[in-house]
Amino acid sequence: LKTRSDDDRDPSSQDAHLQVDFVQQVVEAVRREDAAEAADLVDGLALPDLADLFEVLPPSDRRQLAALAGDNLDPAVLPELDGQVFTDVVRQVPATLVAEAVRQLDSDDAIAVIEELDEDVQNQVLRRLAAADRVVIEEGLAYPEESAGRIMQRDLVAVPQFWTVGQTIDYLRAENPSLPDDFYEIIVTDPFHRPVGAIALSRVMRNERRVKIGDIMTRDPHLIDVMADQEDVAYQFNKYHLISAAVIDQSRRLVGVITVDDIVHVVEQEAQEDILALAGVSEGGVNESIVTMTRSRFTWLLVNLGTAVLASAVIGRFEATIQQLVALAVLMPIVASMGGNAGTQTMTVAVRALATKELSAANALRIVNKELLVGLINGALLAGVIGGVAWAWFGDPLLAGVLAAAMVINLAVAGLSGILVPMTLSRLGIDPAVSSTVFVTTITDVIGFLAFLGLAALVLL
Amino acid sequence: LKTRSDDDRDPSSQDAHLQVDFVQQVVEAVRREDAAEAADLVDGLALPDLADLFEVLPPSDRRQLAALAGDNLDPAVLPELDGQVFTDVVRQVPATLVAEAVRQLDSDDAIAVIEELDEDVQNQVLRRLAAADRVVIEEGLAYPEESAGRIMQRDLVAVPQFWTVGQTIDYLRAENPSLPDDFYEIIVTDPFHRPVGAIALSRVMRNERRVKIGDIMTRDPHLIDVMADQEDVAYQFNKYHLISAAVIDQSRRLVGVITVDDIVHVVEQEAQEDILALAGVSEGGVNESIVTMTRSRFTWLLVNLGTAVLASAVIGRFEATIQQLVALAVLMPIVASMGGNAGTQTMTVAVRALATKELSAANALRIVNKELLVGLINGALLAGVIGGVAWAWFGDPLLAGVLAAAMVINLAVAGLSGILVPMTLSRLGIDPAVSSTVFVTTITDVIGFLAFLGLAALVLL
Repeated sequence: LKTRSDDDRDPSSQDAHLQVDFVQQVVEAVRREDAAEAADLVDGLALPDLADLFEVLPPSDRRQLAALAGDNLDPAVLPELDGQVFTDVVRQVPATLVAEAVRQLDSDDAIAVIEELDEDVQNQVLRRLAAADRVVIEEGLAYPEESAGRIMQRDLVAVPQFWTVGQTIDYLRAENPSLPDDFYEIIVTDPFHRPVGAIALSRVMRNERRVKIGDIMTRDPHLIDVMADQEDVAYQFNKYHLISAAVIDQSRRLVGVITVDDIVHVVEQEAQEDILALAGVSEGGVNESIVTMTRSRFTWLLVNLGTAVLASAVIGRFEATIQQLVALAVLMPIVASMGGNAGTQTMTVAVRALATKELSAANALRIVNKELLVGLINGALLAGVIGGVAWAWFGDPLLAGVLAAAMVINLAVAGLSGILVPMTLSRLGIDPAVSSTVFVTTITDVIGFLAFLGLAALVLL
Repeated sequence: LKTRSDDDRDPSSQDAHLQVDFVQQVVEAVRREDAAEAADLVDGLALPDLADLFEVLPPSDRRQLAALAGDNLDPAVLPELDGQVFTDVVRQVPATLVAEAVRQLDSDDAIAVIEELDEDVQNQVLRRLAAADRVVIEEGLAYPEESAGRIMQRDLVAVPQFWTVGQTIDYLRAENPSLPDDFYEIIVTDPFHRPVGAIALSRVMRNERRVKIGDIMTRDPHLIDVMADQEDVAYQFNKYHLISAAVIDQSRRLVGVITVDDIVHVVEQEAQEDILALAGVSEGGVNESIVTMTRSRFTWLLVNLGTAVLASAVIGRFEATIQQLVALAVLMPIVASMGGNAGTQTMTVAVRALATKELSAANALRIVNKELLVGLINGALLAGVIGGVAWAWFGDPLLAGVLAAAMVINLAVAGLSGILVPMTLSRLGIDPAVSSTVFVTTITDVIGFLAFLGLAALVLL
């Protein structure tokens, strides 16, 4: 009898994430170069768990495990690996294995593997493929990165509308190697291979054999342009609750199909890109090499160093003022920091609203006014708080008043720039997630110091 | 002949987002209280587009449009609406319409509508339902918010493993009101209604009528605990590329099914929550009321005001030092600001790595060391740059040296706190996305001012 706690301890049991002990056992086997023991341990892991194992291993052990596995590595694990982990593993396995992976995989997964390879390995693998397979891959690679053409599946089920349910079932039952492993909808095409309808498998099954497909299909199905950005594709799947959608080329001919399971990955990837971009990280993941990690953050830090120096230059204009009243130096970071926080809040909401199309030309003006108002209200509330604190601290109501006034000004500026910067960047065709933060924080820093020190110079001295 | 540009202008054409002109026409009809014209305009919009229209309208026009539509509003639009927009619309339509919506919808959508209602409206609607429908809703509401029980669909297709493909098809063809509209997998259960397998519809269709379901099903299907958090459910769907999964209760009995189309929404919602939480916004959306928007940001700003005052108190300890060398006041924000940026970068990567389980106990120590190293390398590089700038600016190599040293210290601290804070919070069961930022920026602010001014006091004076 298998108890629940046995299940918990079994590293291959579903849902259980890899246990520390289990990873440790693998590391020890790998370091002893005990291929049999390592194979024994990883045997029975589901592919996504094997991929997770490669991810958590230190790079040297990861490469060693891949090398020990060699030809015995299940090639289907390759599309589950990302970035540095993929590179580490793929460099240890023979090109024949990679070619075998590409042959076995559905076309979308095969392209996902091939596009990650270095060019010389890519060529070696492509040379090992049969001509027909190679053409499919090369056509896929011809589409732009992150386009519908890259993520679509080329094997699909399309039938003419005059077929009956019975004919369709018989067609599916005939052994047909070009049919995909799993599919959820059948696409209905006209004689020019242009989609005219779609029908969920469950509807096909629920109708009698004699019923015509054309009579039960959904007309005007959602069609995806093969050149569409994957982010737009994900938006349509989410909005229209699609399970699969036909992909068409310029002449509206059916060239592939995208299914929702790939879209889950795209949605997560796009949100991840936005989160990291907003924080100024160009390439994410804790598994990247030290060099990649350092580089992915350095550029952003260097740009910010520039804006920090700019803010310092603003402060430098008021050296004489600060010399006379050093309390200004003590209080000045408050205004800039609060402006930065409020600006980041508005900007983050705006970037996401642009991504989900909640914010568009149709409501832009109204939303800008709202953000300005919210900035003014929060500015006034916080000005009251900080004014009281500063008065109590330095016993100078005029200084407290200047601080409060600067707070209101900077929070209004933060609200406005937080929404106008991403909207403007988006209008200019620049990804607002990537570049908004630097503009917004520069504005709130400069205006924060300028408003506080400028008012102080005018009023206090 | 319909040209491409005609398509573009047609607001109801798929993919086209609502055009500004079209929204303007609706607004004018609504303000004239011209119900016929308004109905004419929105007629033919797909439900998700009608939902978008409600979203972009100013609140008063939104309520007016819902009131004009009244009984004629398609109740299926309700689950497409979120937050304030849902509330605005639902308050204008009769309770009978809401009850009708709940009756028509699949159980997961019905629960999504009911859970958004105010308690008195909820009771009115529940009273209008047939007893059987009411029980389903009340059972759903009994599960915790954001649990598998809330998002699962109760109508499902389950068959015993001794059935044949033919029997299964005949069962599906029989008019059976408890079958869901669309489904992608059939769950195979034992006599105690516990899932023992699953089979994709495409596999059922590709086999002969006489084949036994038990011989072609996938054994040990992925099962979801009815109490599981929706974020965990989404993680499993993403990791194991699931299309649908059976939901089981404590006694492992089948109680529902979750399909991937609902998961796309969950993935987006969870990523959205993380993004907003990291920026300190508790409730997102540009369509919330001014009061909600102001409140959702105020708390965070108030907390940050506290930490800003703390940083000021640190500066206050060095008033005498600054009095002697006012250049310190000019340069000091640079160290704190760079620390904040670097800390945010590391923290964001860490929060996402925890969410996607890339960062776990199995690799924590290695990743912490990496982040410290990255912080030291970037700190050293940027210290070189800013040291040179400060030397050229103030002509004081010692001041430049102090600035550079403080930069290295603060970027190392930023790297460490950026990873240790989210890991610690996560270990304590606190959502790291919500509370990491305040700890990390407080640490980098305080250490930034302390290291720079403290070193300056030691070395320069």
